[in-house]
Amino acid sequence: MKNDRFDRTLCPVARTLERVGDAWSLMILRDATHGLTRFDQFRKSLGVAPNILTDRLGRLVEAGFLERRRYSERPPRDEYVLTEIGRDFQPVLFSLMAFGNRHFAKEGVASQLVDAATGAPADPVLVDAHTGRRVDEPGFRFAAGPAADEGVLTRMAFANRRATA
Amino acid sequence: MKNDRFDRTLCPVARTLERVGDAWSLMILRDATHGLTRFDQFRKSLGVAPNILTDRLGRLVEAGFLERRRYSERPPRDEYVLTEIGRDFQPVLFSLMAFGNRHFAKEGVASQLVDAATGAPADPVLVDAHTGRRVDEPGFRFAAGPAADEGVLTRMAFANRRATA
Repeated sequence: MKNDRFDRTLCPVARTLERVGDAWSLMILRDATHGLTRFDQFRKSLGVAPNILTDRLGRLVEAGFLERRRYSERPPRDEYVLTEIGRDFQPVLFSLMAFGNRHFAKEGVASQLVDAATGAPADPVLVDAHTGRRVDEPGFRFAAGPAADEGVLTRMAFANRRATA
Repeated sequence: MKNDRFDRTLCPVARTLERVGDAWSLMILRDATHGLTRFDQFRKSLGVAPNILTDRLGRLVEAGFLERRRYSERPPRDEYVLTEIGRDFQPVLFSLMAFGNRHFAKEGVASQLVDAATGAPADPVLVDAHTGRRVDEPGFRFAAGPAADEGVLTRMAFANRRATA
């Protein structure tokens, strides 16, 4: 989804969604995290139309999540490898995976992260690296940063009025 | 984005994206997390067309992320409040926020989570609640669960062949 509204905002969520705010883009990043790199691998895994896959791969390259590498000259063939930014997106995917397993796995868990040494399922939670405390529990609030514009300031004021009400 | 392909899969990422894999849906959940509840609040915050907003609010209610509550009988007016599932989605949004601040905040940080007591910016990282170790570092791998189908098993085998190669 490419949308000028998201281009203009300073919100970090909106800026990320501008680049990957589309289910196919996120599914490609999921597969890339599993090690898939080639067009035919993504196409087979996702069952996605080739024109959509070409479009989304191009956007993810342009946005800096994937790097295109030529692996065959004749015939010309490229593969798509996660960049440092793409690898740094993994916690978002792992958060989505844990959330889906908690709420939408009515048949039971189909895939999950496990401790490689013990095989025990991981229970991924988001904590503040400085204090180790969970950021989705009380003790954290939203704050505008130095680059905040009027829209951000309005939302932050709203969120914090509510938090202290 | 409602897509039958995602309906059929057992992957927890795909199942979540089936419900919220659309930038507008995620922006609505962002605003709801900031405490916005009313149609006009979302419309003003997002600058979204009313028909799109009506559609996405309806989908989020159907998917169990938002609850519709009547707050005025004359004229009839509803507000939209996060359910328990919707609140549990916050770590995904916070992961997106931290990622966006790391990579796409070229003017500086516009909004972030801070420690409510000290005002220090949080550094949200995803850890295993059992061990406290970061799940995006070595020591964790993907594993199929009891409900895995052939597609999941193929991806997991691929991911783990690669991890041990």
